[in-house]
Amino acid sequence: MAEEKEVKLLDYWASPFGVRTRIALAEKGVEYDYKEENLSEKSELLLKSNPVHKKIPVLIHHGKPICESLIIVQYIDEAFPSKTPILPSDSYARALARFWADFIDKKFYPGMIRIGKLKKGEEFEETKKEILENLRTLEVELGEKKYFGGEVFGFVDIALVPFTSWFYCFKVFADLSVEQECPKLAAWEKRCLERESVAKSLSDPKKVFDMVSSRRKNRGFE
Amino acid sequence: MAEEKEVKLLDYWASPFGVRTRIALAEKGVEYDYKEENLSEKSELLLKSNPVHKKIPVLIHHGKPICESLIIVQYIDEAFPSKTPILPSDSYARALARFWADFIDKKFYPGMIRIGKLKKGEEFEETKKEILENLRTLEVELGEKKYFGGEVFGFVDIALVPFTSWFYCFKVFADLSVEQECPKLAAWEKRCLERESVAKSLSDPKKVFDMVSSRRKNRGFE
Repeated sequence: MAEEKEVKLLDYWASPFGVRTRIALAEKGVEYDYKEENLSEKSELLLKSNPVHKKIPVLIHHGKPICESLIIVQYIDEAFPSKTPILPSDSYARALARFWADFIDKKFYPGMIRIGKLKKGEEFEETKKEILENLRTLEVELGEKKYFGGEVFGFVDIALVPFTSWFYCFKVFADLSVEQECPKLAAWEKRCLERESVAKSLSDPKKVFDMVSSRRKNRGFE
Repeated sequence: MAEEKEVKLLDYWASPFGVRTRIALAEKGVEYDYKEENLSEKSELLLKSNPVHKKIPVLIHHGKPICESLIIVQYIDEAFPSKTPILPSDSYARALARFWADFIDKKFYPGMIRIGKLKKGEEFEETKKEILENLRTLEVELGEKKYFGGEVFGFVDIALVPFTSWFYCFKVFADLSVEQECPKLAAWEKRCLERESVAKSLSDPKKVFDMVSSRRKNRGFE
């Protein structure tokens, strides 16, 4: 019988929040047991580990659960110290990293979720505009830097890069080309994908497209 | 001319988010210049310091702005180390503290805001039920502990205690008595109020009541 690892991850393949935790674990070289959850029939372990939100991802370390992806990534950074920290050591740079990760959750993500549930029309176009504005804000923040934190891949990159698996959907369903609108972000995406931690963790854009496409068909949109 | 302090706080008296940052600064013994903002005519300094959200509170330290209250409180904890840290040193305890602070922002606060904008009726009652459930979840998490983190006043206490200034409004407008429904939370509130950092920072519940009352009258509710 294979030995149980001290770290478990309860996750779902398409979850950008789950992908964040997978990248962080890979960055730190932590081995773990991956447990794919069926979101329409959640496991007892998930319900027991995250009774408040009942959501993946949940990281279980030595039997103790940690919930909410950005909190998990910070936990991984603190619990598995390494030569390559995820958050910078300077307190102001840490605050900035937390601010932009929070911006992605509070501003960028809600628009992305909303547009998937909308028929084409006025509200769809407004939401598309909002997504584009948020992407442009991120493009400006990235500027000429290699990564969001500067020379080193870190917290904001981990927070944002899982969403690049949706860029193909943006193009097909909303005629929104990140490559054209935000060339710096597109170049950053390519740089991130050169990292093994990212390449092996990201959801396949084609599979995401099939999932979104079938959901939109089920809603009678396309 | 009085010397400008190295720390400035852009804030608004009734903001529970602002109160968090005031408590944290008081806990650390940091002196600062307080600048009250007029939220219907925001200052150039606020708009320049928080161009993304354009919201208070903003902490400005050596001319550099930090936004979002929980991020500010963590920054204060890191930038002004003292014998009484706000976040615990153990990584799992830190993750739990961040989880409950996040719960307050994601679950408790939205209900509190919503109920203020509702006429009495079905939706009002549903929102009241939601607020009560969230308070009970917090009551269970507090349990028999002195503070949320155990023996020591810390991050979750700072995140939640500013909202106790609204408990009087809950009682009058929604017939929701925190003292009766959540006696442990009510006792915790009293314990927190014994701390000078809290007592001098909290908004006056009567002033909050007058504000909420006049807003409800303006909406034609009462």
